Order: sequence, then structure tokens, then C-alpha cells
Amino acid sequence: MPGKKHQVAVVGSGNWGSTISKILSENTAAHPDLFEKQVRMWVFEEEITIPEDSPHRSKYGDKPRKLTEVINATHENVKYLPGIRLPENLVATPDIGEAVKDASILVFNLPHQFIGKTLDQMKGKYLPYARGISCIKGVDVDGDVVTLYSELIMEKLGIYCGALSGANIAPEVAAERLCETTIGYDPPPMDLTDQDGSPKDNLVKVDGQRQHEMKPSSIKLHRMPQDYPHVDAQLLEALFARPYFLVHVIKDVAGVALGGALKNIIALAAGFVTGKQWGENTKAALIRLGVQEMILFGRTWFPKSVNEATFTEESAGIADLVASSSGGRNFRSASHAVEQGVSVSEIEEKEMNGQKLQGVSTAQSVYQFLEKHGKTKDFPLFCAVYRIIEGKAKVDDLPSLLNKKK
Amino acid sequence: MPGKKHQVAVVGSGNWGSTISKILSENTAAHPDLFEKQVRMWVFEEEITIPEDSPHRSKYGDKPRKLTEVINATHENVKYLPGIRLPENLVATPDIGEAVKDASILVFNLPHQFIGKTLDQMKGKYLPYARGISCIKGVDVDGDVVTLYSELIMEKLGIYCGALSGANIAPEVAAERLCETTIGYDPPPMDLTDQDGSPKDNLVKVDGQRQHEMKPSSIKLHRMPQDYPHVDAQLLEALFARPYFLVHVIKDVAGVALGGALKNIIALAAGFVTGKQWGENTKAALIRLGVQEMILFGRTWFPKSVNEATFTEESAGIADLVASSSGGRNFRSASHAVEQGVSVSEIEEKEMNGQKLQGVSTAQSVYQFLEKHGKTKDFPLFCAVYRIIEGKAKVDDLPSLLNKKK
Repeated sequence: MPGKKHQVAVVGSGNWGSTISKILSENTAAHPDLFEKQVRMWVFEEEITIPEDSPHRSKYGDKPRKLTEVINATHENVKYLPGIRLPENLVATPDIGEAVKDASILVFNLPHQFIGKTLDQMKGKYLPYARGISCIKGVDVDGDVVTLYSELIMEKLGIYCGALSGANIAPEVAAERLCETTIGYDPPPMDLTDQDGSPKDNLVKVDGQRQHEMKPSSIKLHRMPQDYPHVDAQLLEALFARPYFLVHVIKDVAGVALGGALKNIIALAAGFVTGKQWGENTKAALIRLGVQEMILFGRTWFPKSVNEATFTEESAGIADLVASSSGGRNFRSASHAVEQGVSVSEIEEKEMNGQKLQGVSTAQSVYQFLEKHGKTKDFPLFCAVYRIIEGKAKVDDLPSLLNKKK
Repeated sequence: MPGKKHQVAVVGSGNWGSTISKILSENTAAHPDLFEKQVRMWVFEEEITIPEDSPHRSKYGDKPRKLTEVINATHENVKYLPGIRLPENLVATPDIGEAVKDASILVFNLPHQFIGKTLDQMKGKYLPYARGISCIKGVDVDGDVVTLYSELIMEKLGIYCGALSGANIAPEVAAERLCETTIGYDPPPMDLTDQDGSPKDNLVKVDGQRQHEMKPSSIKLHRMPQDYPHVDAQLLEALFARPYFLVHVIKDVAGVALGGALKNIIALAAGFVTGKQWGENTKAALIRLGVQEMILFGRTWFPKSVNEATFTEESAGIADLVASSSGGRNFRSASHAVEQGVSVSEIEEKEMNGQKLQGVSTAQSVYQFLEKHGKTKDFPLFCAVYRIIEGKAKVDDLPSLLNKKK
């Protein structure tokens, strides 16, 4: 009989990190049999001034204050998720060791460029048998190798890590508007077969844990002690699902991560033709063609791990693609670029304070990846977006670039 | 060696009928080896006055004229597709017998309520071995029986008929903006096995031609003489595909027709939540749930004929659904209803001159169909839309109506 409860920690506190933390805190309070009530959220500490239009300004004044202190005093992330009340059982901490120390469930939700450094800071401070869920969008494409962030976490920390992705524009989820998400979670069978939990047995070597066939690795994972409630689909639903946030747990971690990465390329294409005012037919055609290229990408490089239905039937696939092709930064920036007759990189400079668009870097790295594998011809949409970004083709060339029969 | 060329006729001349006629005429001119250049379009004759803002007004005046005469004089359907130049090899005729008399390829593109009567008028006037393509959106649901319009044409005329559907908002196609369509075409094997074409052999009895299992029928189809070019996927692409209109020919006629029908229910749901300003996540979730219910509908009532990938991967499935959930009458009317706090039927009366919305009648007949089969619980989204239309539920109830885990 389980005697322990899961302690939950969130690593990251942007608008999506704060939103997920809100959901988790609501659920740990709702399921006192499974979870410790308090949820800890690690915050990259910074000094902030409470905005003038915030209702907290009158009470807390206009002096710079630490973000964690403001969150814990106001129960609001006034900088990254203003206007949304956070549960009182959510505690912000600037100390990553303090946040993760006894957490059996670690939820990663931070910008991908900070992952490596943050994982390094966690070394020796977390439970070696913890389980992770990565909410980090995208995949790491480096030359001819694709790495999922869940894989990076597994390799760096030696813990099993799944992935969460879906049509989840953060402010809409925070406002509790109906939506769905997908969790990919498929730990090796050790979770089910551990009988005694004796110390000499607690390391399980997992070969080929990487969910693609390009760079298999061997990771030693620790068994979770048996006195914790078993971490399975049912438990993940208890932790993540809300009446307004419907959760579907599947086994395909790679498909969940790839969907969240590749959709950004297609969102740029949708923005281009929207800027041209070509209408709904054209955008729908690009979405359909994009799904076809997602499927082919998975079939080619992740044949043993990706389930094609993840792209066509899950929130992490088609729904996220549809939402991102009507809203979100990539779509809007591409549309603005066409309307103003300038390049996407000019829009990045003008509208995004030097921040890079996810879709642009994904289109570039995926194109280089396809070129290294000699497969550019099989992905006409992905390559057309790259060529338009690079100024090597025009949006008006899209019909001929996509028409194989020509 | 083929000696004859296909004569092509279009039955119907609304905005979509005129648009398809334009495409067909462009292609018969481009492929003189396969097709007679002239395409005939049957027009339901009416007296029209050329609109004041039409460039043809000065030449043809303001007196009432016959629509066919205006089309043939101006090469424009000034009433239903104004501003679009039609090819000169397209000829409008008010006489259905004249239109179809020697046509080996018949394209049906008219409102579904006129099909029965029009097919009756064709009796004895068409080639008994002609092949048909139905561009008529939707399916006929009557009690517990679903009939595809392509089936109705097959039964009434005794000719094989496929179906065309896709994300094809007519004015955008007419303006030659990039889009895609799907043709379902899967004639019985007689087309391939006929060796001699002798008259006594020219009737082939086809059992179970109806593409669902509820009301199998036996139809006698005539073989097409061998001196015509064979009507197959390649020929249909030559006839329908343009550089801006990409065609994919598949075998699943039922899936093509069902996609075009069921999407209208989901478009209403998308309109409801857009009227509520719930954002892109919610709409994307409804589209995903809608695809799931389309798949289940096909799997339950068309198990032998529907290919589920038609819904998830073809223009007639996901792309048409996405386009219709951002544009089109059903979407807009549902959105206006919520914004103005009135029922959809009030919007129908106010904005549509008494015309009925396709989505409303489809939602009603599909609900009654599901009820007769005792399957309402398996289709929560379809049923929720019906209940909202009928005033039995509110849009705010959607989360609880769709949340199975509650």
C-alpha cells in the first residue's frame, strides 16, 4: 500500500510555466491522497517593479522587488502572467535545489535555451528516482541529429522524462477556456516489475532509450520506491487534467515533441498566405500538406517510436498546428512581413526586441538536417518556407514549389 | 487505340458550379487529345438584370435578360460569380437534354434540394455509359439511413458516380488562389475487364454498390465503349487539376462525401466559441474532437468503404473542416448568434432570407439518426451542437458536455 505522496515541482515560471503551475496546484489540492498539497515553482530570480496598472501596486508600491517575493505575497506572477490568480498552495522559490529537493515529479517548463544550464544546476539536488514531464516546446536539431528535450533531460539527469504539448496558447489556458493537451509518457517496464526495491537493484540499464534511431544511448534509470502511488496515465490525468483542460495520455513521446516543433514552420507558411489575403482554402491546404510532411518526417527518422496518429488525431498534432496557424507569434510575424513587404527577420528586429522566432530557427535547422540527409525534395513545404525566409523564393512561388505535378 | 474524345457537361451553374465549369473548360482546351474542347453547362434559366456596378451593364443595358444568354454573351456569370471571366469554350444552355446528350463525363454541381427533380428531367437524354462526378456537398440523412448523393445519382441514372469535395470556398477557387481538392472514384472492375464491348455484354450487375451497409442495392451499370480514353485517376487529374487547384484522387467515395457533410456541424461549434471569444485553443480542440467523431461515424456505419485517413489527411476531410471553421456561412452565422445573444434560427431569418443553414439541417438529421441507432453518447460534440441549436443547452455548457471524465 502506498504510504508516500508525490511532491511536485515545476522548473520554470514564464507565462506557460506559471499556467501549468496553477493547474498542478489546483490538482494537488483536489487529490490529497496522491499528492503533497504544496507545489514548488522554481523562478529565475529578477528584480521587478509592479506595473502601474496592477491592482497590487497600491499595496506593494513602486520600489523594485524580487519576483519570487511578489509572487508569494500577491499570488500572481505580475510580470509574466498578470491578472491571473495563482493558488495559495503554489510557492515560488529562486533556489533550484530548494524547489526540486524532495520532488518525485518534476515538470520542466522553461525556454529551451536555458535547459542545459538549469539541468547542470540541479546536479546532486534532486531525487534520482524522480519522473519528469517536459513542457518545453520543440526539439533540438543539430546537424544531422534530432534530440528531444525529454531525451536531453533523461541523459543529463538520469530520470525518465515524458512530454506534454497541445493547442495551449498560455493566456487562454490561464483564463480557464476549454482546451486539450497531450502527454506522451512511456517509461521502460521497470516501473511495473520492481518487486523489492532493494538498493543493489535500483539501477535499471535502458538501452536505446532515445526515441529515435540516430544516436541510441544507454541510460541507467532508478526505480521509484514502491511506497509512492504508481506514476501512470491515470495519475498523470489526476495531476494535469482540469474541467477546462482535457488531457490525453499516449505512449508516443517523440510524436508529441515533433508536433510541437514542426508546426512552427507551417505556422509561418500560414502567416505568409494570410498576409497575401489568399483566404481560407490556401491556409487549409498548407495545414494539410504540413501534416503530410510531419508524418513523413516521423516515418523517416523515428520509424520505431512515432505513431502517425499523434500528428493527425492528437492535440499535440493537428490541434496545435491549427491553433498556431491562426494565432501566435510565428503566424503573426510572417503575416506582418508580407503585409509590409519586408523580410521576417526585419519583423523580428522591429517587433520582437531581438528575440528570435521559434519557426525561423526550426525552419533553418530542419532544412539543414534535410539537406544533410539528401531529403529536401520530399519536404517541399518545409523547404519552401526556408527559401522564403532566406529570400531565395517569394510567397508567390508557393503554388509552383508545392505542385509536384508541374 | 482510343478514337473518341470525352464530351464534358456540368449540371448546375451556381458559384461553385460556374467555378468548376471554368476549371473544366481550361483543361479540355489544354488536353485536346482527351476531351472535346467545348464544355456545356446546364443553367436553371431565369431572367436577370445586369447589376449596375457590372462592366457589362453599359453594353447590354438594364432590361431583364435570360441568364444563359448573358453568360454566353459576356462570358461571365454576372449573377452567381460576378467578376470572373469564364473561358469562351464554356457554353451555357437552359436545356438539360441539350447539355447532357452526348456527354461521356457528367459533373453534378447544384444545390442538393434540386437533385431529384433534375435527375428525373435527364431520363432518356444522357449516354447510359457516362461516368459521373458529384460536387454536391453533404449526404442525405433520412431516419436511420444515410445516402450519398453519388449513390442517388447511380441509382436514378444507372451510371457510376464518384464525388469531389475539399477546402474549396468557391470565390477563392475562382480567383485562382492555391488550394486542393479530393476526388473519390472507385468504379466496379468492369471498366478494366471489358474486352470486346459487344452490345449483349454491356450491362454489368453490381451488387452492394451503395457504399454503406445499411441499404445495399443492385445496380446495372453500362460499360463505356473502348474507343474513349479510359476514365481513371490520371484522366480525372487531367480534367480537374490546375496549377492553382491540386487534385488528389482516392478510392474512398463515402469518406469524401461524409467529410463534406459532417464538417458543417463542427463549423457551427467553431462559430459558437468564436462568438464567445474563447480563442484559438478551444476552436482547435473542437476541430480535433470533430475529426474523432467523423472517424467514429465512418467506422460505425461505413466500415467496409470509409478509409479513416480521408478524414485526417485529405482536403475533403481535415482541410475542408479547418477552412469551414474559419469562414463560410455556418461558422459566421453561429458566431453572430452568440455575439447578438440570439438563436441560430433567428440569424437564419435575419441574414439569410429564409434560406436554411446546411449545418443546422445536418446537425438535426444526424442527431435523429444517432438517436435511432442509440448512439448519441458516443458523439458528444455532434449532440452538443444539436442541443445548442434547439435551445436545450447553452454554449457555456460545452466543457461539461464534452468532458467524458467528469
